Amino acid sequence: MPQKVLVIGAGPVGSLAALYAAVRGNEVEIHELRSDLRNPEVISNLSQSINLALSERGINALRQTGLSDLADTVLAETFPMHGRMIHIRKQGQYVRQAQAYDARGRNLRAMDRTGLNKTLLDYLNTMPNVKFFFNRKLVSVDFQKKLAWFENRTKTDPAKSDDIEVSFDLLIGADGAHSAVRYHLMKFVPMSYQQEYIDKLWCQFLVPQATNGDFRLPPNYLHIWPQDDSMFIALPNLDKTFTSTLFLTRSGFEQLDASGKVVEYFDEKFPGVVPDLITESDLRKQFKEHDHLPLISIKCSPYHFGSTGVIIGDAAHAMVPFYGQGMNAGLEDVRVLFEFLDQHPNDQAKALSEYSEQRTPDAQTINDLALGNYREMASDVKKPLYLLRKWVEEKLYIYLPSAGWATQYSRVTFSNMRYSEVQEAAHRQARILNGVVGFALVAIVGSMALFARSRDLERAKVGFMRSVCWAAQRAQKLTQGGK
Amino acid sequence: MPQKVLVIGAGPVGSLAALYAAVRGNEVEIHELRSDLRNPEVISNLSQSINLALSERGINALRQTGLSDLADTVLAETFPMHGRMIHIRKQGQYVRQAQAYDARGRNLRAMDRTGLNKTLLDYLNTMPNVKFFFNRKLVSVDFQKKLAWFENRTKTDPAKSDDIEVSFDLLIGADGAHSAVRYHLMKFVPMSYQQEYIDKLWCQFLVPQATNGDFRLPPNYLHIWPQDDSMFIALPNLDKTFTSTLFLTRSGFEQLDASGKVVEYFDEKFPGVVPDLITESDLRKQFKEHDHLPLISIKCSPYHFGSTGVIIGDAAHAMVPFYGQGMNAGLEDVRVLFEFLDQHPNDQAKALSEYSEQRTPDAQTINDLALGNYREMASDVKKPLYLLRKWVEEKLYIYLPSAGWATQYSRVTFSNMRYSEVQEAAHRQARILNGVVGFALVAIVGSMALFARSRDLERAKVGFMRSVCWAAQRAQKLTQGGK
Repeated sequence: MPQKVLVIGAGPVGSLAALYAAVRGNEVEIHELRSDLRNPEVISNLSQSINLALSERGINALRQTGLSDLADTVLAETFPMHGRMIHIRKQGQYVRQAQAYDARGRNLRAMDRTGLNKTLLDYLNTMPNVKFFFNRKLVSVDFQKKLAWFENRTKTDPAKSDDIEVSFDLLIGADGAHSAVRYHLMKFVPMSYQQEYIDKLWCQFLVPQATNGDFRLPPNYLHIWPQDDSMFIALPNLDKTFTSTLFLTRSGFEQLDASGKVVEYFDEKFPGVVPDLITESDLRKQFKEHDHLPLISIKCSPYHFGSTGVIIGDAAHAMVPFYGQGMNAGLEDVRVLFEFLDQHPNDQAKALSEYSEQRTPDAQTINDLALGNYREMASDVKKPLYLLRKWVEEKLYIYLPSAGWATQYSRVTFSNMRYSEVQEAAHRQARILNGVVGFALVAIVGSMALFARSRDLERAKVGFMRSVCWAAQRAQKLTQGGK
Repeated sequence: MPQKVLVIGAGPVGSLAALYAAVRGNEVEIHELRSDLRNPEVISNLSQSINLALSERGINALRQTGLSDLADTVLAETFPMHGRMIHIRKQGQYVRQAQAYDARGRNLRAMDRTGLNKTLLDYLNTMPNVKFFFNRKLVSVDFQKKLAWFENRTKTDPAKSDDIEVSFDLLIGADGAHSAVRYHLMKFVPMSYQQEYIDKLWCQFLVPQATNGDFRLPPNYLHIWPQDDSMFIALPNLDKTFTSTLFLTRSGFEQLDASGKVVEYFDEKFPGVVPDLITESDLRKQFKEHDHLPLISIKCSPYHFGSTGVIIGDAAHAMVPFYGQGMNAGLEDVRVLFEFLDQHPNDQAKALSEYSEQRTPDAQTINDLALGNYREMASDVKKPLYLLRKWVEEKLYIYLPSAGWATQYSRVTFSNMRYSEVQEAAHRQARILNGVVGFALVAIVGSMALFARSRDLERAKVGFMRSVCWAAQRAQKLTQGGK
């Protein structure tokens, strides 16, 4: 039953929601606070490109639009990352360690947020039942009367009040962490809401091409300089530059602002950055000119009102970027929302209520995982026990596909399993794995002892692998037994 | 250094803040969304009076204004409540149990919110440096430029945009749980914020005078009908009526709405209400006509921006009403805020920052205590162990004043100790008390055995009191030892 769908926010999530609504024959209007980012003067004003890691959930949501070539068009403009590359000093020596993301070879896709956004807007442009309204500030919504009011921000006479009234059957709020839709929704539904700024700010840096026009780092990796209280990362771009981000505490930024010793800080903490990737003067310049931005984490419930309003993406569950899932979860919201709408074509209130009920725990889970993953990225990746555990986990993953064994990371990143179920499975596996890792440690010690005695490396290897296989079989039994 | 102080919200907390600012010689403006509640037509539109329990913190904040007669004027319009009166059925019999609030005889003051508000507004009216602006909706604030914009809600031509710009040196937001000031403050400061609607709604009922013109219940009590999942309470008014409130889950209200069996529900749960306090038809009518309202709990941090903006009262820490501290904490905010402003006359940023830092944990503590106190009011008050514990606690309170022993309730209600310190002291005492109650139980059993053997009641009493005194001395030592 086609109806009038208002989408607030023309970012990637809002644009995808508009596409899903449009292919179902609805009359769609997109209202966006900012200007059309495809205007040449707008693009040149984007001082910082934001780089994202697109993964299975996002790609799947693009595929499920029903537009056969959309996902491929988007993927063509991405750059594959097979793993992390960790940059650290060991005994004073600068070393790089590659860690594959996936034992079965699947990868993440580095992608420019603006590029994805433009592709989606271009697709929407070709659809006759979609209308765009840029520079429109949402002033108020009445979800009962199904009316929204907008202010035209390009109005010429500021003394003239010209709020525009727009009617709707369904309003989808995809207007980001500081969502105006959510603010108005709260007046219609008793909403539990929580926002928290973590004690990390971020600042972006552009790593230019090498003088020979090539990448300055191995391109197929997400590069990480882990330092516990701070972290520097770099993601590849198609044009052979890297987009880098420094994460640091607020007081850390303030100290660097005050002392001006940003080069010294990088020299101490992030080996191989200055001058190999960025020159001293460029680092100082970018540190000064680029914003130092906060990171917000948002949870709320419910996401909807009656049959007329729903929020998705960052508006519903802004998260910190440390699991690389913010955008993917937002795109997945769209797929899940329209699955419920398709399931209940004659009961939109039920569709929204079931969406809200299912999606809330999933979003809250990935939100928590993202908060927790800072530790993994900034600290754990360096630790031997973490590496051993990861190695065992991956071996189990390779040898036990039939038992449905998979790491939490691979389920989050390479599957479409509900986030809440990923976490349940991970908790179950963690109990098993802790036992297995303990056994693996014993196996290592045993193999080393064997090697020390016999000096027979092959025999030690065989003994070790045999122990691991035994542990794997035991784990398989355990996974089949428990839920 | 007199300056221009803008107070947003002319409720009791905003009005008191305006008074504090005015007696310090500042130029004060109060802007309020609603009409002046002293207008006769506004008063007749107030369908429900809200009754509050004024206690030490609120009274102290009124005293500290420097206006000698203010506190007495307010107190003259209050009604003393010496304790709770619990209404329950025991073995099918309706019984009432009085529980004094304070072993030293101090009491709470039942008070009409509107009456307090009017008194404060009348005081403000006499001050030449205070201006009122009613029907003014806050549209925007720039805390950096120190400008606020208001919409005049009584404007005659809705097509004409006539936002009013007002400058300020300090803006105090006292505009309640759904604070517009807080909303704008969040754009200037990274604020952690949490709101939660608890699964209880409330509905008010008026208990009229008896036919002989007297109170229908003993007047000097806060009456409670505790029922675990629901609760009915009644507070006395000066005109010999009672203001009652039903607290019940959302689904409970929906069931009563659907079944219409509100009288049957009261008959079962709240003995002595129908028809002694309210007739069947009146109960049905009031249940239908009065709103079923949600209860929100809000925490945030920080409360201020720089030297120019701060939120107080419900805007900063709306709490559920089960400790009777919401209004008292809001009035105390004013006292504490101006203490810091007086301490740092030349550094307002420091004053606001120290206020925010000190007051956040205090407000969060009373917020949590209020959430926890539902259980005490709706359930614990009936239990023998609770009553024994309370009895022992009060005995210690009477016998150990020198050790600074006091119940958490009495510290919250009858002192001005910081809420966070109240909780620390309570935790300390709880550890001791658990031991003492255990000992008291042994003493009771021992005394009973003694009595059973000797049939000498006096001897058993002496033995029992001796045991309690021993326990008290032990407790005194413990309190003096620990921090």
